[in-house]
Formats: sequence, structure tokens, C-alpha cells
Amino acid sequence: MERNIKELVQRMTLEEKAGMCSGLDFWHLKGVERLGIPSIMVTDGPHGLRKQDGSADHLGLTSSVPATCFPSAAGLASSWDKELARQVGVALGEECQAEDVAVLLGPGVNIKRSPLGGRNFEYFSEDPLLSTQMATGHIQGVQSQGVGTSLKHFAVNNQEERRMSIDAVVDERTLREIYLASFEGAVKDGQPWTVMCSYNKVNGTYAGENEWLLTDILKDEWGHEGLVVSDWGAVNERADALAAGLELEMPTSGGIGERKVIDAVESGQLPLDKLDRAVERLLTLIFNAVDQKQDGATYNKDEHHQLARKVAAESMVLLKNEEGILPLGREGEVALIGAFARKPRFQGGGSSHINPTKVDDIVEEMTQVAGESVTFSYAPGYRIEADDVDETLMHEAVQAAQSADTAVVFVGLPDRYESEGYDRAHLRLPDNHIRLIEEIAKVQSRVVVVLSNGSPVEMPWLPQVRAVLEAYLGGQAVGGAMADLLYGEVNPSGKLAETFPAKLSHNPSYLNFPGERDRVDYREGIFVGYRYYDKKELEPLFPFGYGLSYTTFEYADLKVDRTELTDQDEVNVHVRITNTGDRAGKEIVQLYVSDVESTVIRPVKELKAFAKMALEPGESEVVSFTLNKRSFAYYNVDMKDWHVETGEFDIQVGSSSRDIHVHTRVNVESTATFLPTYTRNSTLGDIQRDPAHKQLLDQALQQFQEASGFGGNDAGDHADMMDAMMKYMPLRALVAFSGGAMTEEAMNELLEQLNNKDHGIRG
Amino acid sequence: MERNIKELVQRMTLEEKAGMCSGLDFWHLKGVERLGIPSIMVTDGPHGLRKQDGSADHLGLTSSVPATCFPSAAGLASSWDKELARQVGVALGEECQAEDVAVLLGPGVNIKRSPLGGRNFEYFSEDPLLSTQMATGHIQGVQSQGVGTSLKHFAVNNQEERRMSIDAVVDERTLREIYLASFEGAVKDGQPWTVMCSYNKVNGTYAGENEWLLTDILKDEWGHEGLVVSDWGAVNERADALAAGLELEMPTSGGIGERKVIDAVESGQLPLDKLDRAVERLLTLIFNAVDQKQDGATYNKDEHHQLARKVAAESMVLLKNEEGILPLGREGEVALIGAFARKPRFQGGGSSHINPTKVDDIVEEMTQVAGESVTFSYAPGYRIEADDVDETLMHEAVQAAQSADTAVVFVGLPDRYESEGYDRAHLRLPDNHIRLIEEIAKVQSRVVVVLSNGSPVEMPWLPQVRAVLEAYLGGQAVGGAMADLLYGEVNPSGKLAETFPAKLSHNPSYLNFPGERDRVDYREGIFVGYRYYDKKELEPLFPFGYGLSYTTFEYADLKVDRTELTDQDEVNVHVRITNTGDRAGKEIVQLYVSDVESTVIRPVKELKAFAKMALEPGESEVVSFTLNKRSFAYYNVDMKDWHVETGEFDIQVGSSSRDIHVHTRVNVESTATFLPTYTRNSTLGDIQRDPAHKQLLDQALQQFQEASGFGGNDAGDHADMMDAMMKYMPLRALVAFSGGAMTEEAMNELLEQLNNKDHGIRG
Repeated sequence: MERNIKELVQRMTLEEKAGMCSGLDFWHLKGVERLGIPSIMVTDGPHGLRKQDGSADHLGLTSSVPATCFPSAAGLASSWDKELARQVGVALGEECQAEDVAVLLGPGVNIKRSPLGGRNFEYFSEDPLLSTQMATGHIQGVQSQGVGTSLKHFAVNNQEERRMSIDAVVDERTLREIYLASFEGAVKDGQPWTVMCSYNKVNGTYAGENEWLLTDILKDEWGHEGLVVSDWGAVNERADALAAGLELEMPTSGGIGERKVIDAVESGQLPLDKLDRAVERLLTLIFNAVDQKQDGATYNKDEHHQLARKVAAESMVLLKNEEGILPLGREGEVALIGAFARKPRFQGGGSSHINPTKVDDIVEEMTQVAGESVTFSYAPGYRIEADDVDETLMHEAVQAAQSADTAVVFVGLPDRYESEGYDRAHLRLPDNHIRLIEEIAKVQSRVVVVLSNGSPVEMPWLPQVRAVLEAYLGGQAVGGAMADLLYGEVNPSGKLAETFPAKLSHNPSYLNFPGERDRVDYREGIFVGYRYYDKKELEPLFPFGYGLSYTTFEYADLKVDRTELTDQDEVNVHVRITNTGDRAGKEIVQLYVSDVESTVIRPVKELKAFAKMALEPGESEVVSFTLNKRSFAYYNVDMKDWHVETGEFDIQVGSSSRDIHVHTRVNVESTATFLPTYTRNSTLGDIQRDPAHKQLLDQALQQFQEASGFGGNDAGDHADMMDAMMKYMPLRALVAFSGGAMTEEAMNELLEQLNNKDHGIRG
Repeated sequence: MERNIKELVQRMTLEEKAGMCSGLDFWHLKGVERLGIPSIMVTDGPHGLRKQDGSADHLGLTSSVPATCFPSAAGLASSWDKELARQVGVALGEECQAEDVAVLLGPGVNIKRSPLGGRNFEYFSEDPLLSTQMATGHIQGVQSQGVGTSLKHFAVNNQEERRMSIDAVVDERTLREIYLASFEGAVKDGQPWTVMCSYNKVNGTYAGENEWLLTDILKDEWGHEGLVVSDWGAVNERADALAAGLELEMPTSGGIGERKVIDAVESGQLPLDKLDRAVERLLTLIFNAVDQKQDGATYNKDEHHQLARKVAAESMVLLKNEEGILPLGREGEVALIGAFARKPRFQGGGSSHINPTKVDDIVEEMTQVAGESVTFSYAPGYRIEADDVDETLMHEAVQAAQSADTAVVFVGLPDRYESEGYDRAHLRLPDNHIRLIEEIAKVQSRVVVVLSNGSPVEMPWLPQVRAVLEAYLGGQAVGGAMADLLYGEVNPSGKLAETFPAKLSHNPSYLNFPGERDRVDYREGIFVGYRYYDKKELEPLFPFGYGLSYTTFEYADLKVDRTELTDQDEVNVHVRITNTGDRAGKEIVQLYVSDVESTVIRPVKELKAFAKMALEPGESEVVSFTLNKRSFAYYNVDMKDWHVETGEFDIQVGSSSRDIHVHTRVNVESTATFLPTYTRNSTLGDIQRDPAHKQLLDQALQQFQEASGFGGNDAGDHADMMDAMMKYMPLRALVAFSGGAMTEEAMNELLEQLNNKDHGIRG
């Protein structure tokens, strides 16, 4: 329905406008009855709907209406399947329509800086490209149903420790290339109805009061058309936040926020047109929701459960499969061990905690999928609510394992280990889970470990087991998905969206996580995740992009449609992938770009494209990728732009970040021009890089050498030293070292000549 | 002789004063004949005297008068013997007196941030305590002879790459604890006559124009009584430098510097009294030198050579000695292999390059020490001036090794690999040296490698050889010292003053060395050397403090004279060391302190004391150390002071940083008091740390909980999350979340009460 929103705003009183900029209660926006502006509802997400009917909270403490619990983002990201994320989004949108929810709070795209981050299970990846693409799929899916999303938590909210007061100190290049990049693609391609600002400060200013983030970058540079909502309780000073670009404070502040906005307008501190523009965005959101509301919508719970099962199966990652122990055979005795087999860990704690429509019993699902010739036994092995070993349960489990042909052990992190609100302190499984694996491995050579956890764990027991399936937090249909994979109904195709480190101390943020008091320095800079492990040559437990299949794939015929291009051109990359095994399967093909030589600090390689391909046995298909300027660029803080340094780039295609199968090189020429401004402190080496400038300098150098004896060709054994000396010498040193042969005036004249050259240097 | 320097200054003209602030020529200061102020001479050092008679340069290119070449600092530091450094200093002082040199330019105490640093061989250590103590010994020795020193390069000059234009960006805590600490002790305890400012910028300002460094810290805080001299050519703007505290520009600037100072005084830009104070310091230096000049002084070249031999033997580090292959027996056939055996690498390139009075021939020294029953053969094996393998030489060497009982292989880094002016690009030995070791190890099981190099190298061949002796750059008596050690005339006692990394990429500075263009970020912060390898749990090739002996030592009876102290107290630590082997030997006992728990980021442990003990076989001695506030403190940038956080500290004593034998704990209580200023953004957890403040807060919290339902004791399974939530919540959130139950006014009142408490919190 067309409305003249600007005109509507003009009809509103200051009180009405200011009032709309804070919530009505915990979950509702304010409406204005007088003007026919309705109140709409938002609820927590993102991997399911948490609509509270009774008393409201933001912690997942009180009950909510039943909703389908899909795999959490850490799992979903391991599918590397944007289309799958879109399908989940569509289903979530349907549930929102059925429950009269206008905006679902998610997805979360904060980068996994440390594996300890308490909400990592809610986030996608350590890589911004993978993260932002998965988020885009999610947003497009939800919003296709006329329901809004909230891309969160903007920005640099990578820890729970002191999250409401911590100041994240990050250089701009790192922000642009890593932390903001994870939002950028999703904002531009997904246009989420809302973006949620985070609790923390970014470089000294609360995210919610950070005009550079909320207005300059989000609205102006990226063109975000929606509005910014505060994380619940993230507003510090309401008027400052509004001025910075935060339109909506949530939840209600009991009238305080409104009052402050009114005061600020009346005192002239806050220009009225800023408030008007905020209200315009609010009204746009509200009417968008209202116009697309489907009255009487319902959804099919069983279908959504089936979708959750499919998504979970696509997301789980097969980490180890020695001697092809998986898939399991359809006969014999299998011991299912671990209390998770009957009470699965399938979601994380906090605001994303959902009341599922149903939850799979893993034992039942295994029984159903395996067929009649398999006999199952079950032993809990440990108590979920405790860390210490229960010797009785342990004994019983070991006996069950011993008398079976195969033991499948279900372990992971209990709820209390991972939650919104606090970070982990280590990467260990509970003691009783570790001991259980170890004891079972002593009596049974065929051990399969199935892990349920939201983020990486250490695996000191890895050599003692034959197979490991990383199920992440697989949602309510986790049991069916596990059974499908373990019995080969579905071929595993997930790959890690994050590095599993060999030790916590190897993590790039380790020296500066979670910071000191109210400040955390992101000193590792752009070296997050595999960008760090690659550069530091540290062997991870499992690398980024890693995951096994029951079939094999071959990479061949890497072709580029041009080998010479400028940064304004695109280049198409083709590679042939063949399923060389005897099962249908899916392969996640990963394209990384490596700058062969660079004057700036760069990662060894960076993910620039990926595709998930389904191939029948023997089938072969060519996958194509398009690379553009951004694929080769780093962010240049001086130019305030992305910049490609002219030179060679290696295009590497492989099945993980540590398993590159084919590569080729292209030459990219920068179209950026610099006009260097030389000073008395410019080095001779820098001046000599431009041929014309070199010529001018050479005349001066000749004079200098004649007078000083420096820099001639007679250094003999010390030629290297002399070369370095001259290269790094500032222009002013020619004056100082020439004993008067070169005067300050002569130097200034030379500088004028150098700076007057009216051409730049190609970048 | 007593003089009234102030009065002398008053008699000088502006031109005379300004004139004195720049050099006369390359090596002389200006005098003023009219007033009887003589010109004095300075020369390069520091491990020998480089007095040039003919045309002068600062690169070691042209010849200089013969002088004793002592082991360079990298070697000397491995002795961990301050008294030995003093003895070298005394000898250097004698040579200066004999050569009419007033100031010897050294020692260098820049921290070894990266093993690639081109001048690392001239510096002592990666640890500031070891570095500053060795420098103090050197300074005290030289200056005891009435000759001045120049502590250099102040500050943060840790690379050669772009050294004249690079801006070293370092946080203050890191400067204080690491980079400045290496100067601090030597300035305070050694009072070097001069301190040499470096070429680079520090946090945006040239070291030579950095008033904070040269005046606030060096002169005011540390009480430096001498003067600051520029590194040769380091002056950017002379008047700015003088204002910042740089008294002497070197070398001459051909009148330009003087002119700028005069102009600045005349224009009022530079206060005259600043110039006067600079000239006072210059005159003090000159007359100090003149008064202590020993006319007709000479020195005994042979005695100095013998000292050089002793120092070299104390400095070399035995890295590996499998099956006690060393010391070598006094019979049989030994193949001496490697061109270094006849033409040793014993010093580095650049301004420290010396014309030695003589140089040992290693083959001759080995022959002399071994005695008549040993037969030696010699084969060069490689050409020093090339990297590629010479197959003829290689073949000959392999044959020599094969036919002998033992092969001693002399390899290392040729001159061109390490020099002032440029940094290394990798840690590899030349290809022909590596191949030589490998080929010889194939035919000879008894291979001893003797390394001559100024900084760490990779050793991929390590498992294939039986012994490795790290000789560093051992000075002119390197051959005698090697023979003494290899044949057990002297028992090896050196220990590494730096970490030998397993891979270059493991080095803490690796991601940010040598920086981008004219800027290098010290992002690793305080985690330099072992502080990093310890924290990151990275296994080095050889750790800091490591070195073998031909005997063994036992550590026992660690005692402290108190276990409870305040930061104003000292604690004495005693430990009994016993020589449990059958040879006399020396042990370097290292004391590290570890803060058991800390709210600030700290290294795992830090070296706080050390001692070198000589013990006869079976002899036992108690060594004592005294620890004070600084031993437990970190630098608190907010307090602008060293601060000890109240709590337990582990005192660890061992034979290397990775081999702690005994430890004990003390409790140190801070006497610092804080008066925290709470704001609306202070977290509840922070306020609750003080019992009195907790009480005030609790009343408000009760109101809040009643109104909001938050933070009660009914969180059940989610108690951890609720606790974290409340702990990290800012005070303002009580207002926002209470729905009006707590007003802004009530919060402000509470804040007033909290901030009015007239007692601080013990730190």
C-alpha cells in the first residue's frame, strides 16, 4: 500500500516522534493510534523463533511458543550453502507469519576471533566472505516471506566478557577487511530491514553512538535502507545514539529515552530533521511489515522438521574416517554410548534458545535408519549435568562397547559450557566425556565419535578413535541427520567454517583475549583464523575448509579467461571437478587468491569464492567463478579505498585451505594513480622508483658522490651495505653528508622539481 | 681540574655555542681555541676501537688503526657475566687512551625483536635485564679508564630496513618494560658519558627530536648526566633536536646545523637557556675527557688478545653434545673442515668493523691445544665468497671426513649475510654450508659443528650431527677459544641470550617485520623473545638461557627470607647449586618471576636476576638474589608508574627459561591505592569488588530485582549466564531495564555516594 510517509511524519508531534524511537515494551515497537500507526512485534532468533507469551526476557530463561529449531549458525555455515540458508530463512519467515512476528532478530555475523567466544555457535565463520554470504541467504529467505531480519551485532562484538563496557580497539584496515566485511555483503545484497548495534565500544565510542559506523559506513557507504535497532539495553545516551544513526532503542526504557530525545531537540542539541529521518525509517519498517502480513498463516511442522534434518545433514563435518569405518554396515551390533544419544545437545544458551516443536531421540533415529539387521545397545556413560566421572555409568558403557562390533560415542559440550553471556576458558570437553572415549577405545578398536558442540574442542584422544563426526549444534532433527550420515543415507559434505587449533594458545587472539579491564586490542589485525595459521606456519588440528566425504573428487583444467587485466576488469575462472568415487556426493570447491609479492602486509591467501557441487559417481562438471577488483584488493587506509597493487596473483582452487589442488597466475594492473609528495625525508630509494624522478635525482647524486665519496661503485665486499645505505637515506642526508657540496637551497630546488612532475605513479 | 663551566658558557658567543653543538668533522667535536676548549675525538665501537687515520666514514669501509677485536655483543651476552663485560671495557678504555680517543661509541642495547635484524650481532639480548646489565658492565669498564661511552641506539631501532625513515609504533607499556628497560639500568647504574639517539621515529617523532624520550625520560626520570649525540646523520631539524634534548649533532653538517640553531635563537623559537644547558653538558664531557687523558698511554696487545680468548671461551654456547663426544680426546685423527677454519668469521660488518691486531688461525690453535697425539687434516669444503656448492672442494672435504675419526665442521654466516645497513631475509645458512654438513654426516658418524654467526640460524641438519658449538662472532681470538672448549681446556659455560626459533615464522614480530613502507607496528607488544614462545607454547629450536656444560649441576634448597611482603619490601632468595659432575665448571643460574594471577596481560615469566657461579667438582654454594618492587611489577600506563598487583608470585630458578629446577611462592601486597571514579557505565561487577561499595549497590539492586525480575536466584540451569549478565551490566542498565523502578536521579545519587567514599581500594 502506498503511503506518504514524509507527510505522515509532518503530522506527528515531537512527543509522538520521540516516543517511536524507543520500544513499547520488551518485544513491541510503539505505534501511534491517532495516526493509524500500528505496533509490531519482534522476537529473538536466528535459527528459530523465540516468541514469548508470558513474561519477557532476553536471556532465553522463560518459555516461548514452540518453533522449529534449525541448526545454529556455526553448523549451518559448515554447509557452505547459501541456498540452503535461504531455505531455512523461508521456513523461519513462514513461522514468523504464523506467529504474527514482524522481525526476527538475526542473523549474527560477528567474526570468530577466538574459539572461546561464548556466542560463537550463533555466528558463521572466521572468514568474512563465507559469513556474509550465508547471512545474505538467511536474510533473503526470511524477507521473501514479508518478515524482517536484524543483522547483528554491529560491530566488533566478538566476546561476551564485559560485553557491555569493553572497548574493542581495531585498526581500520582490519575492520574493513575482516570485521565489517562480514556485514558489508549482507547489507548490500540482503538489505536486512534492521541492523542491530552491539553493546561494546569500537575504538572508544559505543557502537550505538558511533556515527562513523552507523551513518558514514552503514547508511552512506553501503546504502542500508532499513533502520538500526539497539541490542537490548545497548543504548548509553539516547540522544547521542539517535544523532549517530540509531533509530530504535529496545526494549522500552520506561520513558527515559523519549524524554532525552525531546530535551535534545528542544535544546537544539539534536536537529529535528535527524529525528524526522529516523521516524521515516521506523514508519517504513512498520508499514512494510503491516503490508506483508499474511493473516491466518500457518506452517507445516513436519515439513519444517524434515528441512531441519536435511540442513543438519548438510552441515555436519566428517573430520576423520580411518579405513572407511563409515558409513556403518547394515548388520552386527552397535553400542550407542553417551547420554546425548537420548537427550541431544542441539542448541546454545541465551537469547537464541528455542522451545522446539519436537526433538529427535538419536537412539530411535539410528534404529530406524539402520534397518532390522543391526542390533543396538545404549549406555549413557556420563551424567550431562556433571563433569566428574560416574564410575557405574562408565563401567556399564565400557561393557556395552566391548560386547558390540562398533561403538558410537556421543559426546560434546553440555549447555553450561557455551552460552550467551560468558566466554569459555578452555577448549576441553568435560572430563567425563574425555575419560569415556579413552576407556572405550581401550576395549573397542572400532570407535566412532560424534561431537555436539558449538565451537572447536581439543581432541587429545583423536589417534585412538577411527572416526569423528562434528555435528555442531544440529537443531531439533539432529538425531535423524546423524543417522543419515552414519549409515550413508546422506554423504557427508560439510566443511569447517573455522580452524580447529591444535592448542588454544595457537589462536591469533590468544595474547589479547579477552583484553585488559575495559579494553581489548585486536593486535593480530587481519590475521584472523586461517589467515594467521597459514602465515605463522602453525599446524591446526583441522584447517579451515576441511571436511571428508564418502566419495572422492578430482580437480583439473583450471582455466582463466584472461591472464592480464586491470583492477576494473573481471576474470572468470573455470575448474573441472569430477566425482571419482562410487557414491554420489557434494564437494565444496574453494577459491583462494594469493598476492605473490606485495609492499603491504597481506595474508598468504584469502577465500574469494566457493561453490557446493552435487556430483553422481563418475560425473564431471565445470564450476565457474568470477573475480573482480575486490578479489585482489586490500583496504588502503590512506586512499580510503580498496586498492590492488599491480602485480601477479596466484589463484588457488582446492578442497580446503590446506589442500590446494590446482592454481594459476594472473597479472592485475592497478588503475589508481598516486602523486607522491616528496619531502626532505623521502628516501633516495623511494624517489628512484619513478624513472623520471630517478633522472632528476641522479644529477644531484653525482655531485654528492664527488664531494663525499659515498655511494660510489667502489664499495667492493661491502656493496650490499652501500646499496642499502643509499636506498634508505633521506634526501636531507645528502646535504648533511656532502660537507656543503649540496646546499639546503639546492635540495629544496630539487624537491620542487620532483614534486612538480605532473604525472603520478601507477599503483 | 675544577672549572666553572657555567661561567665559561657565559663568555661564549652565540656562534661559538651553536658551533659546538655540531661536529668539527667526521670524528671530532669542535673546540673553541679562544677559550681553551679543546677538540676531542670519538670513534666507533663497541667491541673494539675503529679509529680511522685517513678518510673517514661510518661504514667500516676504509681502514683503521689496529685494535683488539673482542667478541661482539651477541657473543659477550652469552657469557651472562657482567664482570667480564667490565674487563672488556677496561681493555677497550686502555686502547682508547693509547689512541687518544675520548669516547668509544657503544655499547648497543637495542632489543632483538626479530632474529633478522642486521645489527643483532652488535646487540646483547631479547631480554632487557640481561641486556642492560651487560651494558652496565661495559660502560663501567670503559669509563673507569677515563674514556666515555655512548649507549646506543636510543631508541626502538630494531631493524635496518628503512632505518632512517621508519616510524616504530609501540605502546608505552611495551616501551617501558622492554625497549626502554634495556637502556634504563645502564643509564642509571652506568651513567654513560653519552647516549646516542637513533635514526628512526618513535611513535611519529624522530628519536632525535623526541623530547619525551630525550628529556622527560632520559634526563629527568632516569637522571642522565651526560649528553645525547645523534647517530651519524640522524638529525632532521637541528633546532628542534636541540630543543628536544639532543646536544651534539654528528658528524659535521658543514655549518648548516649551527646556522639553524643561531636562527632559532635569534627568532626566539629556541630559548637561549636551552642552548646554554646543552653547551654546559658538552663542556662537561670535553673537560672530563681532557682531565682524564693519560698522556703516552700504551697497552699490551698480547694480554688483550689473551683476554679476548678468555671472553670468547666464556661466551660460546654448547648447544648439543650427544654421547659426550665433546670434549674431544687427545688422540686419533681429526678432520677440520670449512674455510672458516683458516679464515674465521669473527666480527660483523658496518661501523663496528675493526682492523684486528691479529687473528687466530683455527687450524693452528687446534693443533697447539690438542697436543702431539692428534693428527689433523684440513679441507676448506666451500668458498666463503659464494653460496653455491663447489663440487671439488666438497668431494675433498667428504674424503677428509671419511678417513678421520672425527670431523669438526666450521660453518656459519659469511660477512655478506649480516651487516649494519640491511636485515637478513631468512635464517638459513648458505647452501654450500648446509650441503657440506649433510654430505659429511653421511660418511662420518662423529660430526661436530662449530657455528660462527651473529644471530640465530635454522639447523635442519641437527639430528645428523653429534655436537654443535655456537661460537657467535668470537673476536680475533676465536680460534684459541674454540680449541680450548673443544678439547676441554675450558668448560663451556655460555647460555643463549636469545631464543633460537624452530622457524622464522614463529618469531613474535614475524607478522609485522619490517613493517609497511615507513611504519612498523610492534603489535606483539611485551611478548618479545621467550616471553612470546612461553605464552604461545611454541617449542623453540633452543630456548632463551639454554647452554650445556661438560659437568652437571644440581639445584636445591630454594629459600626466601619472607613469604609475605609489600611492594616496598625486598625479598632475598637463596638457592644451593652443586657441581655434581667430575669437572670444574660454571653455571648461569637464572631467576624468573611469574605472576600467578593477574587482571593485566603478563608474560608467563620474566627474568629478574641471574648469577654465574664457578664450582669445582662436588663443590656446593648458595647463591643469593634480592628482589624488589620492580621484580614483580608491570608498567601501568594509567598510573604512569610501575605497579605490583597484590597477589601470589612464583619464583622460579633454573638453568634455562625452559628448565626450571626449583620454585616457591611469595605473596606481595601493593601499597598503591586507587580511588576509582564510577560512572553510569561502570559495571556492577567492578563496583561490587569493594565491600563498602557493594553494600551501597546492593540496596539499589534489590529494588531493581523486585521491579524487573532480573538477577534473582531463580535462574536455575542458567545461573552462570545470569551471573555473567549481572557482573558485566553497567549501572545505567539498571535504569533502562527496571521499567522506571530506578530513575536516572536515583542512579546519579547512588553514583555520588559511591564516588564520595573517602577510601581507595588496595591495588
